[in-house]
Amino acid sequence: MLKLYYAPGTCALATHIALEEAGAPYEAVRVDFGAQAQRSPEYLAINPKGRVPALVTERGTLTETPALLLFVAQRFPAADLAPLADPFALAQVQEFNSYLCSTVHVAHAHGRRGARWADDSAAIEAMKRKVPTTMTECAELIEQRFLKGPWIFGEQYTICDPYLFTIGTWLEGDGVNTTRLPRILEHRRRMLARAAVQTAVSIEGTQIP
Amino acid sequence: MLKLYYAPGTCALATHIALEEAGAPYEAVRVDFGAQAQRSPEYLAINPKGRVPALVTERGTLTETPALLLFVAQRFPAADLAPLADPFALAQVQEFNSYLCSTVHVAHAHGRRGARWADDSAAIEAMKRKVPTTMTECAELIEQRFLKGPWIFGEQYTICDPYLFTIGTWLEGDGVNTTRLPRILEHRRRMLARAAVQTAVSIEGTQIP
Repeated sequence: MLKLYYAPGTCALATHIALEEAGAPYEAVRVDFGAQAQRSPEYLAINPKGRVPALVTERGTLTETPALLLFVAQRFPAADLAPLADPFALAQVQEFNSYLCSTVHVAHAHGRRGARWADDSAAIEAMKRKVPTTMTECAELIEQRFLKGPWIFGEQYTICDPYLFTIGTWLEGDGVNTTRLPRILEHRRRMLARAAVQTAVSIEGTQIP
Repeated sequence: MLKLYYAPGTCALATHIALEEAGAPYEAVRVDFGAQAQRSPEYLAINPKGRVPALVTERGTLTETPALLLFVAQRFPAADLAPLADPFALAQVQEFNSYLCSTVHVAHAHGRRGARWADDSAAIEAMKRKVPTTMTECAELIEQRFLKGPWIFGEQYTICDPYLFTIGTWLEGDGVNTTRLPRILEHRRRMLARAAVQTAVSIEGTQIP
């Protein structure tokens, strides 16, 4: 049985949805960020990075959302969540997810976790001020270039869709004017109509803007 | 024929080495960052993100290092650069590369590209000051937890090795005391003994600390 460690409002939701889509046997375990449980010795023994998600498997613990999503797709191939046998198409999937983790998620994190990258409070405030700009730029690139519709890669629903949906729930809170992003909003609505998304959102208690 | 767009001193070196390891037919094309060529209309038509690496294939352009590395491994399976058929082992490879791109490369970028995340110069200076600390933390985690030796995953050389080698060439410039990182230095020496690494480093003119 897989065990997914998550906290509400984090990118763990993407893997949570993928596990639901795959019909995977798993248990969801909430990590209480309010009590700083991600820094407890117990949790650090599971994930020394002190973050979520972490997926405990029979062979050990895996972290990092793009890796977890590919794992779910490859481990449960019947769900057809990624073009596993096509190197170019799979690279496009990984390219999109890599952009989300290393550019979009990072831009978002500057509004909440600026202390990762600077110690003085004025610098941390300066980072917060730029988040609406950087997140708008990222969202516009996705809206205009990457999101083909109805799913990111057209007719084929992939592991990229739960990840975009998850990061997309942060946009309004990051000061992005989503009324100018109709394709991302339509993608959100389409995701919310899926049973797997409803289940994961309900378990986590995710706030959907 | 594949075409790799690179600039010296960037993470493009990782894909460059992987292409050499795979014996792939490719052409390396230098993008002149000194002349801001990555912002030229010609280059933005190739990669709208305005960064390197970009890999032009017969089916289109791919970007993002973890995606390119997986593409090379899957497209040239005879080179055995990743455990493609083992979901857990492949997820470990992607986990490591995802950590490099979204945490380590991002920490490094705060020393040179702080303007991505804040507009005021004092904040950008504050970011620069923290780079030795964050990069040391990342390098220590790799040294103590991830690098099994002789290669990252033990006896099996993978697409993670050129990526760590590449980011490792930045450590001294980022103020990290590498004399306390003997396993990373030994990995660097071992990489430099490989013909593929020598070729890619020589073509790019990479400075090795």
